[in-house]
Amino acid sequence: MRTQVAIIGAGPAGLLLSHLLHLQGIESIVLESRSRAEIEATIRAGVLEQGTMDILTEAGVGERMRREGALHRGIELAFGGGRHRIDLNELTGKAITVYPQHEVIKDLVAARLAAQGQLLFEVGAVTLHGLDSERPSLSFTHGDEIRRIEADFVMGCDGFHGVARPAMPEQARRQDYQRNYPFGWFGILVESAPSSEELIYAQHERGFALVSTRSPIVQRLYFQCDPSDHVSNWSDDRIWSELHARLENHDGWRLKEGRIFQKNIISMRSFVSTPMQAGRLFLAGDAAHIVPPTGAKGLNLAVSDVQLLARGLEQFYHQGSEQRLQSYGADALKRVWRAEYFSWMMTRLLHTSADATAFECEMQRAELDNIVNSRALATALAENYVGAF
Amino acid sequence: MRTQVAIIGAGPAGLLLSHLLHLQGIESIVLESRSRAEIEATIRAGVLEQGTMDILTEAGVGERMRREGALHRGIELAFGGGRHRIDLNELTGKAITVYPQHEVIKDLVAARLAAQGQLLFEVGAVTLHGLDSERPSLSFTHGDEIRRIEADFVMGCDGFHGVARPAMPEQARRQDYQRNYPFGWFGILVESAPSSEELIYAQHERGFALVSTRSPIVQRLYFQCDPSDHVSNWSDDRIWSELHARLENHDGWRLKEGRIFQKNIISMRSFVSTPMQAGRLFLAGDAAHIVPPTGAKGLNLAVSDVQLLARGLEQFYHQGSEQRLQSYGADALKRVWRAEYFSWMMTRLLHTSADATAFECEMQRAELDNIVNSRALATALAENYVGAF
Repeated sequence: MRTQVAIIGAGPAGLLLSHLLHLQGIESIVLESRSRAEIEATIRAGVLEQGTMDILTEAGVGERMRREGALHRGIELAFGGGRHRIDLNELTGKAITVYPQHEVIKDLVAARLAAQGQLLFEVGAVTLHGLDSERPSLSFTHGDEIRRIEADFVMGCDGFHGVARPAMPEQARRQDYQRNYPFGWFGILVESAPSSEELIYAQHERGFALVSTRSPIVQRLYFQCDPSDHVSNWSDDRIWSELHARLENHDGWRLKEGRIFQKNIISMRSFVSTPMQAGRLFLAGDAAHIVPPTGAKGLNLAVSDVQLLARGLEQFYHQGSEQRLQSYGADALKRVWRAEYFSWMMTRLLHTSADATAFECEMQRAELDNIVNSRALATALAENYVGAF
Repeated sequence: MRTQVAIIGAGPAGLLLSHLLHLQGIESIVLESRSRAEIEATIRAGVLEQGTMDILTEAGVGERMRREGALHRGIELAFGGGRHRIDLNELTGKAITVYPQHEVIKDLVAARLAAQGQLLFEVGAVTLHGLDSERPSLSFTHGDEIRRIEADFVMGCDGFHGVARPAMPEQARRQDYQRNYPFGWFGILVESAPSSEELIYAQHERGFALVSTRSPIVQRLYFQCDPSDHVSNWSDDRIWSELHARLENHDGWRLKEGRIFQKNIISMRSFVSTPMQAGRLFLAGDAAHIVPPTGAKGLNLAVSDVQLLARGLEQFYHQGSEQRLQSYGADALKRVWRAEYFSWMMTRLLHTSADATAFECEMQRAELDNIVNSRALATALAENYVGAF
């Protein structure tokens, strides 16, 4: 097979890139190791920045997001027995939409298939070839067949554990940056009405907790846990008791309970791999960088990477210039480092460390106090949260 | 001897408190273990916030400060080969004055002596008695005499190593918070014209450096060093070479050299001791809290403590109410923790840690980038620096 752009990975990065290229008349094929059913059911992030909403809307895949997603104009910070609203809209003029990532994926898959886009699920043994040449290729298995795609470019949108990053040419010049956090998030999905109109980020001596939502009848709650803990250690009763303890010291507000129908533990990592491009291989999204979920930036970074790549490929195919593609890594990393910093800062600000000294605990409290008492700091937080930069 | 308020320590806190009380017709005696010549010659901080300037001016001891001090409307942050101005005045409407602490002390000593204030230098063996009663007292040696002062209140303004804090009643309820930093500041005094109109805070892979000033002919320069290093290890040539290396990668700007006539090494510590009051003993300034010098907050915190104490004593003697004195600790600590946070943040932001990971170094750079690229974050830094809160 021959195409212009071979894309590894049918996550939000790979699917959106394929769709944006299609809108510019550029051909692509997307390879995905999992099944369509699996990618459409995997629960991930759910906060879309204004810029992400705009890109999905302009690409014609934002209709259901606008109808079913919930526009949030603020978030709440809970600590020290009080709740403090950060008015995102008043501070930045922007807002965010809570709309789950797997719904974005459903919309993108539907759009690609409607446009006869080439989307191959359940491929295996993906191997990259000739990345230093102008004719890179991919070999892979699909069903019983061994197949090969020749392309002008290969896009690694296959996540942290994907095959693209390890295949990058010039591994010797590679530098990775990372931090593994000593805590994880225990996430549950609950059948109930929302407990709060806006997301609540709670710092508590027992650990962080987050009240989030998926829909008017499904809620997403998280609480900080030991990353090596097991879901089986947590009965429903124990989970509710922990969530009540961390969330309910605030002016009579009560967390709504409901049937818990999913439990999982998420590890927390900060990671950046550089460079993001070498030869004819480009990385986007989690393949190049991971943020802890505290800043709600992962999906949004993938979308902004892909927007840069689509513009670069458009310039290459329509104007014959490689300028934007050449500067892709440098351009993307500006935003990546800002989001990495924000995610690291929010993680440090809101989680409880077992080995924190009394002084460090007071610094955390002082930083939270400063944010809710200083319009300047609240504005900086809001700008980063909505992606207004 | 009998007085209303016995003050231990003739630093800025003790002297200013004695002077403010005098202006309200309240009697005090100040005890100091060192000589007048020594306290007037000890080189310390030099940045006065707007609020500190205002208090000194209102107290009638700001005349020389206004004449000889240098009003600074901005500071510069240097990192990554560039320099970035933080326009304090434009961002906050306020400014700072660079005027050395020992000059403030000279002005206060002169004002106390002109008003026949009781100031006893070179006292020894200061011991506190009856702090839980309404008649506390101090015994001490002065020359060959053993003397005693009875008072209504005892004010511990005698610094981190003083006798007041260890004498606090209710030691069992005491909680101290601290952090000792793994670096110090090597400070020099230089005979030369200023190299820069404004202070330069430089982050560099070799370590932090600060270009400060004392007067049009005396400059104060600092660079991060090992706190266990010795002044004797640093020849003038080695010092200049280090300062040039850390400061001069910026657009052709050159550091002016001159005769170095003082060298010293400052250790870096964050420290807060609570409570700040117990019985009839109150702590103010360094006796209760230490900040690393990076935020230039030490002297300013001492002044704001003392302003609260003076108001409390005024209310006690003139209106017969102990309300303000009772809430002194809680009121002072609000500002103390904010300044501790700012000083810790600035220290973390600007110093180089030998054991920082590559990711942590990038977080430091990203935070600096954010500050100079976000008006909101620059405003928050400026507000804290000038004390506008």
